[in-house]
Amino acid sequence: MNRGDDFYPVVVVGGGHAGCEAALASARMGVRTLLLNMNLENTALMACNPSIGGPAKGHLTREVDAMGGFQAKAADRSALHVRWLNTSKGPAVRTLRIQCDMWEFHRAYRLQVESQPNLHVLQAEAVDLWVEDRRIRGVRTSLGQVVECLAVILSPGTYSGARVYIGLDRFQAGPMGNLGSYRLAESLMSLGLKLGRLKTGTPPRLHRDSIDWDSIPHQEGEEEPCAMSVFSEPRVVSGFFCGCTRTNLETHRIIIEALDRSPLYTGLIEGVGPRYCPSIEDKVVRFPHRDSHPVFLEPVGKDSNEVYVQNFSTSLPYDVQVRMVRTLPGCEGARILKPGYAIEYWYSDPRQLEPWLEVKGLAGLFMAGQVNGTSGYEEAASQGLVAGVNGALRAMGVNEPFVLGRHEAYVGVLIDDLVTKGTDEPYRMLTSRCEHRLRLRHDNADRRLSFRARELGLLDDLSWGVVMSRMEDQRKLREALEGAVLKPDFVNPRLRELGSSPVEEPVRALELLRRPEVTWETLRDLTRIGGPSESWRSVEVEEKYRGYVAREDRRVERMSRMDQVRIPEGFDFGSVRGLLRESLEKLNRVRPRTLGQASRISGVTPADVELIWMHLEGGDGP
Amino acid sequence: MNRGDDFYPVVVVGGGHAGCEAALASARMGVRTLLLNMNLENTALMACNPSIGGPAKGHLTREVDAMGGFQAKAADRSALHVRWLNTSKGPAVRTLRIQCDMWEFHRAYRLQVESQPNLHVLQAEAVDLWVEDRRIRGVRTSLGQVVECLAVILSPGTYSGARVYIGLDRFQAGPMGNLGSYRLAESLMSLGLKLGRLKTGTPPRLHRDSIDWDSIPHQEGEEEPCAMSVFSEPRVVSGFFCGCTRTNLETHRIIIEALDRSPLYTGLIEGVGPRYCPSIEDKVVRFPHRDSHPVFLEPVGKDSNEVYVQNFSTSLPYDVQVRMVRTLPGCEGARILKPGYAIEYWYSDPRQLEPWLEVKGLAGLFMAGQVNGTSGYEEAASQGLVAGVNGALRAMGVNEPFVLGRHEAYVGVLIDDLVTKGTDEPYRMLTSRCEHRLRLRHDNADRRLSFRARELGLLDDLSWGVVMSRMEDQRKLREALEGAVLKPDFVNPRLRELGSSPVEEPVRALELLRRPEVTWETLRDLTRIGGPSESWRSVEVEEKYRGYVAREDRRVERMSRMDQVRIPEGFDFGSVRGLLRESLEKLNRVRPRTLGQASRISGVTPADVELIWMHLEGGDGP
Repeated sequence: MNRGDDFYPVVVVGGGHAGCEAALASARMGVRTLLLNMNLENTALMACNPSIGGPAKGHLTREVDAMGGFQAKAADRSALHVRWLNTSKGPAVRTLRIQCDMWEFHRAYRLQVESQPNLHVLQAEAVDLWVEDRRIRGVRTSLGQVVECLAVILSPGTYSGARVYIGLDRFQAGPMGNLGSYRLAESLMSLGLKLGRLKTGTPPRLHRDSIDWDSIPHQEGEEEPCAMSVFSEPRVVSGFFCGCTRTNLETHRIIIEALDRSPLYTGLIEGVGPRYCPSIEDKVVRFPHRDSHPVFLEPVGKDSNEVYVQNFSTSLPYDVQVRMVRTLPGCEGARILKPGYAIEYWYSDPRQLEPWLEVKGLAGLFMAGQVNGTSGYEEAASQGLVAGVNGALRAMGVNEPFVLGRHEAYVGVLIDDLVTKGTDEPYRMLTSRCEHRLRLRHDNADRRLSFRARELGLLDDLSWGVVMSRMEDQRKLREALEGAVLKPDFVNPRLRELGSSPVEEPVRALELLRRPEVTWETLRDLTRIGGPSESWRSVEVEEKYRGYVAREDRRVERMSRMDQVRIPEGFDFGSVRGLLRESLEKLNRVRPRTLGQASRISGVTPADVELIWMHLEGGDGP
Repeated sequence: MNRGDDFYPVVVVGGGHAGCEAALASARMGVRTLLLNMNLENTALMACNPSIGGPAKGHLTREVDAMGGFQAKAADRSALHVRWLNTSKGPAVRTLRIQCDMWEFHRAYRLQVESQPNLHVLQAEAVDLWVEDRRIRGVRTSLGQVVECLAVILSPGTYSGARVYIGLDRFQAGPMGNLGSYRLAESLMSLGLKLGRLKTGTPPRLHRDSIDWDSIPHQEGEEEPCAMSVFSEPRVVSGFFCGCTRTNLETHRIIIEALDRSPLYTGLIEGVGPRYCPSIEDKVVRFPHRDSHPVFLEPVGKDSNEVYVQNFSTSLPYDVQVRMVRTLPGCEGARILKPGYAIEYWYSDPRQLEPWLEVKGLAGLFMAGQVNGTSGYEEAASQGLVAGVNGALRAMGVNEPFVLGRHEAYVGVLIDDLVTKGTDEPYRMLTSRCEHRLRLRHDNADRRLSFRARELGLLDDLSWGVVMSRMEDQRKLREALEGAVLKPDFVNPRLRELGSSPVEEPVRALELLRRPEVTWETLRDLTRIGGPSESWRSVEVEEKYRGYVAREDRRVERMSRMDQVRIPEGFDFGSVRGLLRESLEKLNRVRPRTLGQASRISGVTPADVELIWMHLEGGDGP
C-alpha cells in the first residue's frame, strides 16, 4: 500500500451529522481527509425525528450553512414539510423548521461526502487510537489497518457502547437496529478520558394506513417559498401534512400503571436523559396535573409508510406502547412498525476539551457531537464543523485555533457552555442559553460568519459570490430606505389605519420601519422599493431593535475584551493569591483558556476573575 | 393487548428475500401473517451482487412470479441494466438477468410487504421459539413479547450467528455492517436441530469516479423492451453500462503472496464456501494455470457512487484488496468504499426437513433460504414462497402439503435436492441440476405453475386474467400457424437463403418452425401473423424441441408414478428385507416421503427402491 492509503492528515471517525460536517470542512480547507464510517448506509442517518431547524437549532444550521456546511442544503433538498416557527415571538428569534424525507436527506449527504474533493470515505470501524507522547499518531480500524494521521475527529454519536432498552429487555445495539461500536471507548478510557453514560430515546413509528387521518386536525406547510440554506433556491414544499393529536387521561393511566416495567423508573438505565426532549412517561410523571400533552404525527419519507409520533418518545414495553398509542385520537387502530426505545451510550465530559474541541493535553484528538454530551443533529453538525476546521488547522501546523465567541454565533455559545460548564444530561441548544439573541439571528448568519469562513477556505468562490450579493442587496435596500422621504399627506392615512401616530414633517422610510406597527410589507407598499424579502426582513429587524442591539454591542465589547485575555496552557491557578478554594477547584477542573471563559464558570465570582486578571497582567482589573 | 397483537396464525422471521416471499404468500392466501425483521431498512437487502436472474436463477424468479411472488416485479421496477443470457445455448435455457438499483429494489419490497392485506410488519428480532409437544406454539421477540402462532417460517439468512472476516481480523456482525442475530440459533440447537457453519463472501465496492471507464470495454444493456415478470410492461432500460476488466499475473502474485493472511487459507474460517461463486483467491489457487479471470464493474444504484466488482469476492486483508484492485485495467487509481469480506453463519442441515420445508417431527416449524444451505436471492425467494404456502396451509389446518415435483419446477428440483441429498456447501441452482430442462423453461413458468397457484389463492383475479390472456395468445398463435399453409413458390426462395431444404408440397407454417434454420422471426415475416413475441418464442421452443420434450414427458411420467407412492411417516426401513446396510443408513438419515425421493438419494440403488416398493405394495416393482 502506498502512503496515500495509510496516511491522511485528518481522519474523521463516524459518518453522522457531526462527522460529515467535520470531514467536509477539513476537506474544503484543502486537507486530505479520511472519513471512517461503520456503515455507509447510515451516513447522516436521522435516527430520531427527521427534521432540521426550529428555535436555536435552526440558528445553528444557518451558521453551519454560512460556513459552507451541508446540513441546510440537505434539508432543503429532502424537504417534505416546512414551517416558520416562533413567528409570534418577534422577528429576531423567528426560525425555519424543515421535516425531511430521511432517506433523501441521507442520500444527499452520502453523495456530498463521496464527491467532495480531498475527502475519501471508507466503510470501517475505528477500534483504537495510536497515541505517542500525548500526541495522536493514528487510528486502527476493524480492517486491521493503521491509518497514520496528524489529527483525529471523533464523532461516534450514540453508537459508542450503545445499549438499547425496550421495557425490561435490553440488548447491545446502536440506534434503529444498527450495530453499535464497543472497542473505541476502551481506547479512550485507557488514555485517561473520563466517560459517562447518557441516554436518549425515540418514539414508535406507526403505519400510515393504520391512522384515521380524517378524524384529526392537519397542519399544512407554509405556502410561501422557503429555504434553510442561503445557497438554495427558495421553493414551495407541498403534498405532505402532519396530524395533530393529544394524550388523554387514559394514556396517562396506562403509562403510570406500567412504570414498574419501565427501564427508566426501575433504575435499569443509568444514563441521564434529555431534559428538553423527555419521554412521554417522564412528562406524565413530572406534570401529574396536566390532563393532556400534544402529539404530532409526522411523515418520514415520500415513499414510505412510516409515521413519526412526535412528543411520544418512550422505552416502555412494546405491549404498553401499543395500548398507549391506541388511546390517541386518530390512532385507535394504529399499528407500530418500529417500536420506541431508549438508548444508552458513552459520552466524554466536554470539560476535558479546549474551546476548539481538542482534548486537553492530547494534541490532535478532537471530539464533536453527541460524544460531547449534546443532543440533536444541529448541535452535532455545528460542533463537527468547528472540530473539522481545527483538525485541519492542526494538520496544517497552524497554531491559532478557530474559536467562535458567544457574541458571534450560537455555535460559540454551545461550545463555550460545553467546555466551561460541562453537562450531565444531553445538552440541547435553546435561544434562552444565548445572551446575544438580537445579534445572533437566523437571518444574519451569513453576514456574521462568512468572512471568517472565507478566510479559512471554507467557502468556495461561488458561495462567496452569493453571500456578497446578499449583502449588497441589503446595503442597497438600506440606502434606498434612507433616501426615500415620505410626505405627511401621503403617509399619514396609512399610519392612522395602523394605529401609528401621524408625522408632521416629511420622514425617511427607514425611520418609519423602526415603529413596531409598521411592518416591512407595509413600507414596501408605500415606497414601492423592490429587493428580496429576505433583505427587507433583515433591515426591519435591525431597525426595530436598534436600541437593544446597540446595548448588546457594548456588552459584547466588554466581554470580548475579557475573552482576549489569554490564560497560558498549564497556568498555575494556585499561584493566584486570594482565590477561594472552591473557585480554585473549579478553575483547575475546567482550566479556562481566556479570562472570559473563566468568568463564565459557575461558582467563579467576578472578584476571582479580577484576581486572576491582576495576576496575569500584573495590573488593574477589567 | 388484545388477541390481534399477540396471535398471528403465521409468523415469518427475517425480512430478506425468503422471508418477504414467505410472508407475502401466506398473506395472499388470506392468512393473518406477522413478518418480524430486525431492521426494516434491510428489507430484501441485496447484500451481495444487486442482480436478479441469469441461468437457472432466472427460472426460479419466473416461477416465483408465476405464483404471484414479488421478486421479478421488484427487479423490473429497479432495473438499471438488463441482458438476455445463454442465448447461444438455445432458446430453452435462455434467461434474463437484471441488475437493480439496490435501494429501489429494497424500497419496492418494503412498500409491498407493508401494504399487503393480512400482513403486518414489525421491527423486532426473534430470539426464542416456544414449542410444546413437538409442535410450534409461538415466538419470543427482543421486545419481550411472545407472539402465539400455528406456524413459524424461519429465514434468518446469513444473520444467524454471523461473523465477518477481513484478513485475520474478525468481528461479530451481520452482512454489510449490520447487526447479526445470535440467540435464535441457540433455541434451534436446544430443540435438537443439527446446525453447521457455512461461509459466503462479497467483493469490495469501488468509488465510481475513481475508475477510468474510458480505458476498458463497456457492456451495454439490451435495446429491446424486457421484463422479468409476466405482469410487468416490458421496457427498454438504458443509461447504465458495466465495465469489463480482467485479473492478470500481477493480481495473482499479490493474492498468492498474501495467502498467509487469508482467513480461508489459514483455517480461521470453518464454514465451507460456495463452489460456484468462489472468492478470487480460491480461483487463483484452484486454477494455477489460468493467467487471467474476467471481472465486471457494475453500478449498484442510480444515485450512488458504488460500483460492485463482480467475480472479485475476497476476504483478504484490506491493504491487499487495495493492491489487488489496482492491478485491474481501469482500476489503477481505484478507491474502495466498502471492503470485501467473508461472512460465516449457522445453517441447518436441510435433510431435517420434509419436502414441504417443515422440520421433521416439529409441526409448524418451517425453514427457508440461506438457513437451508443455499446461496442466492432467487433460491431464497422460491423457498420462501413454498414455505409461506405450507405455513399458511398448516395454519389453516389443511393436511395436504404443497410440494412441487422435479418435473414441475426448478423450485421442485431445488427443494428435492436439499431435503434428499443435503448440502455441505452453499447450494446454488444450476440448469445442469435439472433433468427436465426442456419442460422447465423461463418462458413457460406461468403455464406450468399458475393453475396450482390460483387454486391455492396465490394469484388474484387481475394476475389470473393476465396469465389466461397470455395462454390465449399462444393458443391462437399456434392455431394460426397450424392453419397457415405456405406454397413452395412462395417459401422456397427464403428457405434456400437460409440453407434449408426446399419443400415440394404446400407446408403448414407450424411444421416449418420445427426446422432449426427457421426462426420465429423469419416465419413471422413469411406469414405476417401477429401476436406478442413472447408467444412466438414459446411456440418456437415447443416445436423445435417436440421430440425431446415428448421423451422427457415419458420419463416424467415414470418418475411421477414413483413420486405418487407415499412412504408413511415413521416407516421402518429396517423391516424391508434385503436392503444393503449402507442404503438403510442413508434411508434412515433422509427418511424420504415418497419412493421417488428414495430413488434420488445418492447411494440408494434401483434394486433398493424395488425392494421398498414391493414391501409397501406387497406387489411388483415399478
